[in-house]
Amino acid sequence: MAKKRILSGMRPTGKLHLGNYLGALENWIALQDEYQNYHLVADYHVLTTDLSTDEIYSNTIEMVTDWLAAGLDPEKSPMFRQSKIKEHTELFLIFSMLITKARLERNPTLKEQVRDLNIENLVYGHLGYPVLQAADILLYKGEVVPVGEDQLPHIEITREIARKFNTQYSPDSPVFPEPEGKITSFARLPGLDGQRMSKSVGNTILLSDGPEIVTQKLRKAVTDPQKLRKNDLGRPEVCLVFTYHKKFNPQDIPEIEADCRSGVLGCVDCKLRCASKINEILAPILEKRKTYENDLNKVIDILHDGESKAGLVAKQTMDEVHQKMTIG
Amino acid sequence: MAKKRILSGMRPTGKLHLGNYLGALENWIALQDEYQNYHLVADYHVLTTDLSTDEIYSNTIEMVTDWLAAGLDPEKSPMFRQSKIKEHTELFLIFSMLITKARLERNPTLKEQVRDLNIENLVYGHLGYPVLQAADILLYKGEVVPVGEDQLPHIEITREIARKFNTQYSPDSPVFPEPEGKITSFARLPGLDGQRMSKSVGNTILLSDGPEIVTQKLRKAVTDPQKLRKNDLGRPEVCLVFTYHKKFNPQDIPEIEADCRSGVLGCVDCKLRCASKINEILAPILEKRKTYENDLNKVIDILHDGESKAGLVAKQTMDEVHQKMTIG
Repeated sequence: MAKKRILSGMRPTGKLHLGNYLGALENWIALQDEYQNYHLVADYHVLTTDLSTDEIYSNTIEMVTDWLAAGLDPEKSPMFRQSKIKEHTELFLIFSMLITKARLERNPTLKEQVRDLNIENLVYGHLGYPVLQAADILLYKGEVVPVGEDQLPHIEITREIARKFNTQYSPDSPVFPEPEGKITSFARLPGLDGQRMSKSVGNTILLSDGPEIVTQKLRKAVTDPQKLRKNDLGRPEVCLVFTYHKKFNPQDIPEIEADCRSGVLGCVDCKLRCASKINEILAPILEKRKTYENDLNKVIDILHDGESKAGLVAKQTMDEVHQKMTIG
Repeated sequence: MAKKRILSGMRPTGKLHLGNYLGALENWIALQDEYQNYHLVADYHVLTTDLSTDEIYSNTIEMVTDWLAAGLDPEKSPMFRQSKIKEHTELFLIFSMLITKARLERNPTLKEQVRDLNIENLVYGHLGYPVLQAADILLYKGEVVPVGEDQLPHIEITREIARKFNTQYSPDSPVFPEPEGKITSFARLPGLDGQRMSKSVGNTILLSDGPEIVTQKLRKAVTDPQKLRKNDLGRPEVCLVFTYHKKFNPQDIPEIEADCRSGVLGCVDCKLRCASKINEILAPILEKRKTYENDLNKVIDILHDGESKAGLVAKQTMDEVHQKMTIG
């Protein structure tokens, strides 16, 4: 039986942090044998909230280098830039005729963004974000889309558009699958200050951080504010570092929890122990990253190769779309 | 000096009527020496108000046959289908990031359409109609756009988008011109029933109507309702046929007006006279049309040729866009 297709992407934000890794990348890597994965650098999506394009190229290279360093296999999972495959925009235009403005305005993720980013004047293309996402997914006939809970409304819009197209233009043999969201079980990793992890806040650990930097960053992480000295009794449940231990050092949790509560374990030691665990996990990624950093042309070649492969699939899908629509 | 570029198009509505001819086509033909014209079959635009695509192909062929029969010269003026040149959709996506939803909602032409077509639930792509139109025009760096008065708000949106792109991505050497609307002086020709001319109402004379059909149609045209018999005194100012005389038979106007008012000229004779004038004008168009009808492959070849030529210009423009944006 043919493998199911996964379509998943990220905006090119540059070097990835641990939150990106746990939230998506780790998952992609775990799924790359069971599924046929396609991974998109969503560069056009950047424009929905930021018109500046100066850093898109370098951010793309950094991000894809992290993808590769973390273990994404370009032979199994083509990686490509959205902007390099014109069919994304063609399908976007067609899909833009298959959904109402009101439906897009009801999108809860958009409402959140408008609130969080203080957007006064919504851009037309921003309203159409889920339409472009539907084109991204359906161009490759993606059947499974790994997503966080907050992205489920977008998958629902993709399903509606697929259904609408099939009903309108291809009632007997549907062109598009109605993809399913595969929810990542991962609970969001907070930043080192306990807030939402974000590069712009500077509270992240990057996949590309060396051991010393990781240790230094961990030292500044927030802990239980009531535990001021080593022997003070700690409360792991309010400690950020404990959250990290749970994630990266699960086997030591009972001991760490007990020793923190009893005051045997001081925060400095606890942080060093956590840093060393994270460094263990990052070591092979760092090493692999170095080989790509020393040969960035390889990264670019991998993108070009992915773009050829994805381009073929995209063309096939659009041939079918044109034939069913008798246009284009 | 290089000729200025004109970009102008029509939705593929099939055989054209006299209103289309006087309103646009006649004008295109008159301008094809002075300007470098590009003529677009706006097939994607059809989808903004009607998802059915069954007749788009045949309507395209009929319409382009009329363009050619009326005298549009494919050597001077490339003609092409929007849907055949993917760059339209690519530029549409980019432009969709450069304009707000609110700006598009304020578009008076849209408001009219929503009212006239009784649209309850506006489609996302319909809201973006002027964005696609901006892409159509600016992809060819159109400097002049022949339009009716009602289309001026769209040209204003095109100018705003061109300005926004230039300021954002190319402040030193603008990529896009800010095109100017060239208003067609033509007063709209009413249908044979005195209402707005429209194929769906069946009150049109087609460019492809033979002499007998034209005469038959003219016979049924509305005239002064108070002039029932030949000798009744007529009021040309309320007579539809008189409007047609003014358009197609200007040199006879003084005589016709006097003879109608005095009752010397009866409506039947007046209509026959008008029909014969229209047939005179249509005769060379009909003749030329026949040669194309007998060789429809020629029409298709002309489209393919136009698509090659337009495609080259489109590619050049997008290369420049990609370079300035450092994306794509």
